[in-house]
Amino acid sequence: MHPFDEAIRLEPMPDGSLRGHTSELYWNFVGPYGGITAATMLQGLLVDARRLGEPVQLTVNFAAPLTESEFRLKPRLQRTNRNSQHWSIDLLQGESEEAVISALAMFANRRDTWSVTDAEPPAMPAPETCKQAVLREGMAWPKMYALLYPEWRFGQDNPESYSKAWVRDATPRTLDFASLTSICDSFFPRLFLRRPQFVPIGTVSMNVYFHSDAQALADHGEAHLACEGKGQIYSRGFFDQEARVWGRNAAGAPAPLATTQKVVYKE
Amino acid sequence: MHPFDEAIRLEPMPDGSLRGHTSELYWNFVGPYGGITAATMLQGLLVDARRLGEPVQLTVNFAAPLTESEFRLKPRLQRTNRNSQHWSIDLLQGESEEAVISALAMFANRRDTWSVTDAEPPAMPAPETCKQAVLREGMAWPKMYALLYPEWRFGQDNPESYSKAWVRDATPRTLDFASLTSICDSFFPRLFLRRPQFVPIGTVSMNVYFHSDAQALADHGEAHLACEGKGQIYSRGFFDQEARVWGRNAAGAPAPLATTQKVVYKE
Repeated sequence: MHPFDEAIRLEPMPDGSLRGHTSELYWNFVGPYGGITAATMLQGLLVDARRLGEPVQLTVNFAAPLTESEFRLKPRLQRTNRNSQHWSIDLLQGESEEAVISALAMFANRRDTWSVTDAEPPAMPAPETCKQAVLREGMAWPKMYALLYPEWRFGQDNPESYSKAWVRDATPRTLDFASLTSICDSFFPRLFLRRPQFVPIGTVSMNVYFHSDAQALADHGEAHLACEGKGQIYSRGFFDQEARVWGRNAAGAPAPLATTQKVVYKE
Repeated sequence: MHPFDEAIRLEPMPDGSLRGHTSELYWNFVGPYGGITAATMLQGLLVDARRLGEPVQLTVNFAAPLTESEFRLKPRLQRTNRNSQHWSIDLLQGESEEAVISALAMFANRRDTWSVTDAEPPAMPAPETCKQAVLREGMAWPKMYALLYPEWRFGQDNPESYSKAWVRDATPRTLDFASLTSICDSFFPRLFLRRPQFVPIGTVSMNVYFHSDAQALADHGEAHLACEGKGQIYSRGFFDQEARVWGRNAAGAPAPLATTQKVVYKE
């Protein structure tokens, strides 16, 4: 079993909830990597027998750090329309009924309609010419990914915070909605592209818009994803960043797979 | 009473829920303008006695159209941390316990920390030189706003979908978090900047990150806001757009007030 599948594995419980366990392999500093948590929340909906269609939108709010232990997911089907569904899902730990993580998600049957891409795919050098991200000790999760940067500018005082990278699972695995969600959190905090000092940070909320279907993700396969992101506003204890994840379609052309944003607490 | 305050007015009920009514003045085609609904959801939390701090993040999911009638808001305080709070809030209509609208929000006590603005404020001509948006018959809400476009390119086949506009309440009103939220939905669908044909559309989910505190919004006052937005990906029945709302600080310099994104269904 691929370590990613092991990390997001969920066991259905008699009361309709799902049981999972945090993964040491995807550990961050004071809790799991946010991407693996977001992927697990989505997985809790993907495995639900009532699910209609494929994910279009996912917002995950991180209310408190997870502790290294079991957790329960409580999915709630909010509404089923003709071709779409709205869900919420909470993650709980221990005996508490207070959510540690909460998410909203929208699923739909996708259809072929008029399409165009306003965003420009980033010009990328070959992955072989890029270098793996160089990170502080104590984070496990970056070892689970190829995080190949054409230019590593973190920990410097740069005039702006745009960066691009090739990203995929360190052990190749065919892309799906859960792994794409996790990769949407692999954009390192833009704060560290604007300011060399390290300060504690923590994601408050992460947003993903999916622009493809399961077949398009399978068509992309195990290849690297072209990821680009930029910070926007750093003000009064928080900052936000926005990003895009590009794959390849069956013909080898750039395919926009997800756009994603987050807001991050900073000390 | 300003019509905006009338539209978002909520009456506390004995069971802890809040009662409101849709507003004809802020009507869209098949339901209320999404901005007034999003503002009402936030207002349901702003008036809560348990609230700590000011809004940092709001995500509103539109599961079904509201009908013109009363509604109930059910706020749920999910978690209170030392300096932040996580909430969810649902909107219900009639006897049904299925949410019509669901939202997640995070509030915090904001602090002065290191600040920088990566996003560039848009160059804007004077509001007096811009023209009010020219819209299809049948929408009431645009009359509630000054929507002043330097260049009106909607309903054309443009090579890209970036646009900017000056926006404020038609009857001036001092900016606050609720009115800023509503204005975050005033970016017309980017689809109509890329394609002249009219097709039915509907916002699925709207996201707002707030970058200022109540004092900064009051400092901005009644002046026009500089709004800029752009579409990203139009694919398989949906598209997304991202935008920024700029005000002025007490010294008259551009101040980033909110960044916002949405994903929209299209036929």
